[in-house]
Amino acid sequence: MRYLIEMGSGMVMGDWELVIIGAGAAGLTAGLYGARSGLKTLIVEEKMAGGTTADAPVIENYPGFISINGQELVKKMVEQCERFGAEIRQLEKVEKLELDGGKKVVTNRGVYEASAVIIATGTHHRKLGVPGEEKFSGRGVSYCVVCDAPFFKDKRVLVVGGGNSAAITALYLSEIASTVKLAHRRGQLRAEEALTRELEKKENVEILWNTEVKEIRGDTLVKEAVLYNNKTDETWNLEVDGIFIQVGEAPNSEFAEKAGIRVDEAGYIVVDTRQRTNKEGVYAAGDVTNRPVKQIGTAVGEGIIAATDAYGYIRRPYYYKK
Amino acid sequence: MRYLIEMGSGMVMGDWELVIIGAGAAGLTAGLYGARSGLKTLIVEEKMAGGTTADAPVIENYPGFISINGQELVKKMVEQCERFGAEIRQLEKVEKLELDGGKKVVTNRGVYEASAVIIATGTHHRKLGVPGEEKFSGRGVSYCVVCDAPFFKDKRVLVVGGGNSAAITALYLSEIASTVKLAHRRGQLRAEEALTRELEKKENVEILWNTEVKEIRGDTLVKEAVLYNNKTDETWNLEVDGIFIQVGEAPNSEFAEKAGIRVDEAGYIVVDTRQRTNKEGVYAAGDVTNRPVKQIGTAVGEGIIAATDAYGYIRRPYYYKK
Repeated sequence: MRYLIEMGSGMVMGDWELVIIGAGAAGLTAGLYGARSGLKTLIVEEKMAGGTTADAPVIENYPGFISINGQELVKKMVEQCERFGAEIRQLEKVEKLELDGGKKVVTNRGVYEASAVIIATGTHHRKLGVPGEEKFSGRGVSYCVVCDAPFFKDKRVLVVGGGNSAAITALYLSEIASTVKLAHRRGQLRAEEALTRELEKKENVEILWNTEVKEIRGDTLVKEAVLYNNKTDETWNLEVDGIFIQVGEAPNSEFAEKAGIRVDEAGYIVVDTRQRTNKEGVYAAGDVTNRPVKQIGTAVGEGIIAATDAYGYIRRPYYYKK
Repeated sequence: MRYLIEMGSGMVMGDWELVIIGAGAAGLTAGLYGARSGLKTLIVEEKMAGGTTADAPVIENYPGFISINGQELVKKMVEQCERFGAEIRQLEKVEKLELDGGKKVVTNRGVYEASAVIIATGTHHRKLGVPGEEKFSGRGVSYCVVCDAPFFKDKRVLVVGGGNSAAITALYLSEIASTVKLAHRRGQLRAEEALTRELEKKENVEILWNTEVKEIRGDTLVKEAVLYNNKTDETWNLEVDGIFIQVGEAPNSEFAEKAGIRVDEAGYIVVDTRQRTNKEGVYAAGDVTNRPVKQIGTAVGEGIIAATDAYGYIRRPYYYKK
């Protein structure tokens, strides 16, 4: 039953059935399911395995773990995935996907031919790019309110941004934190009016208009933000326990788009209920997709569906439903 | 922000925002996310918490746990769910759902009014109903090939059934087990022809036509099946290590269908990508839905999506996208 690949140049490395791009929660789960079903499975990861899961200092909302460190969860997922025979190649960057006449995944080290490909490359946070932001990431600076809000119960938080996700973050925090400031560099939010109206109704939320964050300071944890009002030209310090930065996410989908894979207006890969893209035998799972909820648990679910469908596509061609 | 319910008769019990029916992996996950987002959340479960997850003696494919007993995983999920304030009421049977003018969940103990409802009632296996089947369930008798096939590497297995899922189970096992017998009570499979053809090509698969299982025997584990050929009237014993019963699953959706919730031809609740049913504010997640893959990890993903959307529906009515 092993799929026979057409060997090309000497650069072709191995006869893989399933090549997964990205080793975050979605990719590692797809790898586990792919390998466990008997597919010869490779995962290629640009950085170290883990994706955004590895960045979370404490995870309380992945079912089964009351509290676990992101790195620790990733370690378990990697071990589980490898135990069933998936191979994970880290620090190898995918540069190109070729989908004309077969499927080739071109990396900085070689070319892999595959019967099916799962793209699980996630997103990157848009950063503010101010001093202290990186140092205090996971120590008061967060990019995910659903993940981290409970750590700021009855504390003072600052949300940075002016779009829907910043507004939703501030609303979410208003029911958990003691006070919420929302710093936006303009005099009006980009968020929908209904959200803005809701924000204005909240007694513990204050919007800081025309306000930019210039620096984040603290000791082991965040203590204050240095703010600048670009209308009055004033600089001042705000004491806070947490800073939620919501200035946008961007999907890591550029190479996919270049290969003709359909993305939405924000660059997220468009998938159907079986995680299929518009290209036959090419799937996407996790944060890189246009699915509305982006959590570890949903990435896991999507990785399972993608790998399961890929198995049918590769091994059960007669049975596979188009 | 608390939703005010209209108090009816003295039977109305509590002012819940989110009522989840079923405490398997999907329901417990929805409970965790619902409670964690601040919704007043109740889970009603007919039996004990756990659903089919609790039935699995060993789980190796839920990401994060290299190997865990089903009961143990459920215990963790329950603890996590309750920690954030979800209330779980076990041994309470939902008898009716009333969706005209509000949402009422009627159980054998009372009536709960809710702003949103998530149905996560799972499925039940159709059983063979033969002696030994229950005794050896999880001790050689399995109803899920994806879950349990790896335990039968290089062993002798028997698959019971004649439809697509029995055929797929046999094909799946043919690449793992040493020998696979497929017992079907008729002289022809119900499975698609392509699958049947594939099965016939497998050297280690043998189809036992007109064959019924009459009894399952063993000591601590399965040792043999008593088979009966309904054409020749012969009875004989087959030595096996595992028996996969694939005579069908049925969704626990009868009460939902009676409430006007759309189900597919097999009775599974039809959901969209946000786990919404055809009734506003009513969701379904996990095995009871018409989603194609039924695993713990996909139930978790669906539970998260349902609870997240329910949160938007209840607390962000202006923002919520119909």
